[in-house]
Amino acid sequence: MSSLLVDNIGELVTNVPAAGGDGPLGLRRGVALLVEAGRVVWIGPARYAPAADRRIDAEGGAVLPGFVDSHAHLVFAGDRAAEFAARMAGEPYTGGGIRTTVGATRAASDDDLRDTVHRLRDEAMRQGTTTMEIKSGYGLTVADEARSLRIAAEVTAETTFLGAHVVPAEYAGRPDDYVGLVCGPMLTAAAPYARWVDVFCERGAFDADHTRAILTVGQAAGLGLRLHANQLGPGPGVRLGVELGAASVDHCTHLSDVDVDALAGSATTTDPTVATLLPGAEFSTRSPYPDARRLLDAGVTVALATDCNPGSSYTSSMPFCVALAVREMRMTPAEAVWAATAGGARALRRTDVGALRPGVRADLMILDAPSHLHLAYRPGVPLVRQVLHNGVPQCRL
Amino acid sequence: MSSLLVDNIGELVTNVPAAGGDGPLGLRRGVALLVEAGRVVWIGPARYAPAADRRIDAEGGAVLPGFVDSHAHLVFAGDRAAEFAARMAGEPYTGGGIRTTVGATRAASDDDLRDTVHRLRDEAMRQGTTTMEIKSGYGLTVADEARSLRIAAEVTAETTFLGAHVVPAEYAGRPDDYVGLVCGPMLTAAAPYARWVDVFCERGAFDADHTRAILTVGQAAGLGLRLHANQLGPGPGVRLGVELGAASVDHCTHLSDVDVDALAGSATTTDPTVATLLPGAEFSTRSPYPDARRLLDAGVTVALATDCNPGSSYTSSMPFCVALAVREMRMTPAEAVWAATAGGARALRRTDVGALRPGVRADLMILDAPSHLHLAYRPGVPLVRQVLHNGVPQCRL
Ligand SMILES: [Zn+2]
Ligand SMILES: [Zn+2]
Repeated sequence: MSSLLVDNIGELVTNVPAAGGDGPLGLRRGVALLVEAGRVVWIGPARYAPAADRRIDAEGGAVLPGFVDSHAHLVFAGDRAAEFAARMAGEPYTGGGIRTTVGATRAASDDDLRDTVHRLRDEAMRQGTTTMEIKSGYGLTVADEARSLRIAAEVTAETTFLGAHVVPAEYAGRPDDYVGLVCGPMLTAAAPYARWVDVFCERGAFDADHTRAILTVGQAAGLGLRLHANQLGPGPGVRLGVELGAASVDHCTHLSDVDVDALAGSATTTDPTVATLLPGAEFSTRSPYPDARRLLDAGVTVALATDCNPGSSYTSSMPFCVALAVREMRMTPAEAVWAATAGGARALRRTDVGALRPGVRADLMILDAPSHLHLAYRPGVPLVRQVLHNGVPQCRL
Repeated sequence: MSSLLVDNIGELVTNVPAAGGDGPLGLRRGVALLVEAGRVVWIGPARYAPAADRRIDAEGGAVLPGFVDSHAHLVFAGDRAAEFAARMAGEPYTGGGIRTTVGATRAASDDDLRDTVHRLRDEAMRQGTTTMEIKSGYGLTVADEARSLRIAAEVTAETTFLGAHVVPAEYAGRPDDYVGLVCGPMLTAAAPYARWVDVFCERGAFDADHTRAILTVGQAAGLGLRLHANQLGPGPGVRLGVELGAASVDHCTHLSDVDVDALAGSATTTDPTVATLLPGAEFSTRSPYPDARRLLDAGVTVALATDCNPGSSYTSSMPFCVALAVREMRMTPAEAVWAATAGGARALRRTDVGALRPGVRADLMILDAPSHLHLAYRPGVPLVRQVLHNGVPQCRL
């Protein structure tokens, strides 16, 4: 069994404050980290580092847990660059929006979809993302949702059935019928490939009754719950998510005091509902950002994710989201880095990723920078020099 | 003499609208591009491509002129990550600001400065920047300004003497004396290594009289003129720059109608004064962005640059600046890409870079994306797959 020592670490972000680390990130200096069989097996003073078969010299760079991107839509075909350009120019958009992507996705071959999923997954990995949730939601037929999840499952364990992304054109005016399909044969076909079920709970998409129905049958089928909620306006999504015990409610741009109280109350329980903020969506739709400070100051557990999708947020970059969180949502660099790593792990109810301590997966990144601060301080710069995923180096060495 | 053919190009941005290209970017499809001796020697329909010794397959990616980053401060030591974090948290900043960097720079060895310049220059190159202006301005002694420019000249022809960056502590209360030093022995020592002279013309830095004095003697010493102007508040900088025939006035965040009229009037002359916008600075200082639309609609020639420096904008990423320009300054993706390539070339009065046509330098980038739109549509994502600088591939092939 081959061992790998990471040393000459400038700063180690452990996300384990109790273990003698500094601040919420559990920062440690002068330490090295040993990997065996895909797991972190030892962290301690570099001068006591055990012998190892191989060594990676971090060259004084910061080492962080890999990013946990808990919200991404990667199974699609085509792009919507022209729609983006028109929106940015303030021109009325006359294309088909999400339905354009649904049409292209249905028409695509398995291999085309697979190529896109792998390409974006690899692109995210090069930027430090070692855990990535991937949703269906551009198939919207029994067969296309099932194959979307089957393809997603090739690259991640964190697959999410989002048949309730939008009511497809062929069900226009018959949302109840579509919800019946989602709750019945579509769920049956999707569940074998899915860990989670998600609903786009928003005015114009799925209302509270639809959302409750879908999440309830999804839960009965063994899936965990997550929700798109309160993105475009106020609504019942966040409260419903907390009530039903969702792992995460995502977007949270338009919240009432009652919503914030519900999330804060949940944060003190053993299985909190995380508020996942997706500032890439606000960036690319030129919309107001969620009020992260209000959530953090209320004690809510906050995650950051990309929302990577071709319509409203076509970024795969967690470092970009960290920089936006600091600039636009007044999170501190430490809060943003925590939310993009440990926060994402909480949002996926994972304890084996999002932190660095003996026993967890050896999922980590090495920066071309001495501190985690540089992720926000150096926006747009590709600072991730090396990524270990399950202990295996992913980049040029 | 070895030749190199770039083919399978998804979209070629030429910035040559008159040569049959589409729109201001002179977009062409179905073409290939031949490089010999570091120059573009042929662009034409791919099916008529001449034989070449080597071939680069763009795999359907967009090919653009390399970015021309006309404003960067790379010769410094240390960083100011803690100052950044404090500023983002809204905490009063009690450190030394720019003077911290001046102290660290003076104390640094030539090799330390050289390492930083090379590291940042390489980092920018990997992101598509093939021409980069580099300023002095953290030495502020005769010897330290001269060595800053000597080191900058190792990596670029576009060196700028910015002795008038700030009045150093040892001249506190004696700005006239410091301007005398800048105009006299400092200029004499710096001029052999500099192409340009620049002044930080701002309340609290150098006033109109100082600025005029420095630019006038710099011009007499054979240097071209550029200016930091109207960044933090209204002021005389922009008008003075136009009056003196500066190649560029940079920042332009606080402009009067008279300022805009002066720039617009200049734009119709043979040697216009370009307005160079630096949105990375507004991003990293959480400040309001310049009004790019007002300038563009008035007919002003606009460039985009990074302002890469450790205090107010520590990004080397021109793609990030393009994305910000579209999101925050309402430039179209085409306007932003033009400003980051052809605009930067205008700001440096270069005709051999910033466009792709026979005769220019073979400075170009190949994107992992089919269109220039993706630079704004996919914010934060490292989309530059390959860079040719003087015809030489810079990245993994
Ligand atoms: Zn989403
Ligand atoms: Zn500057």
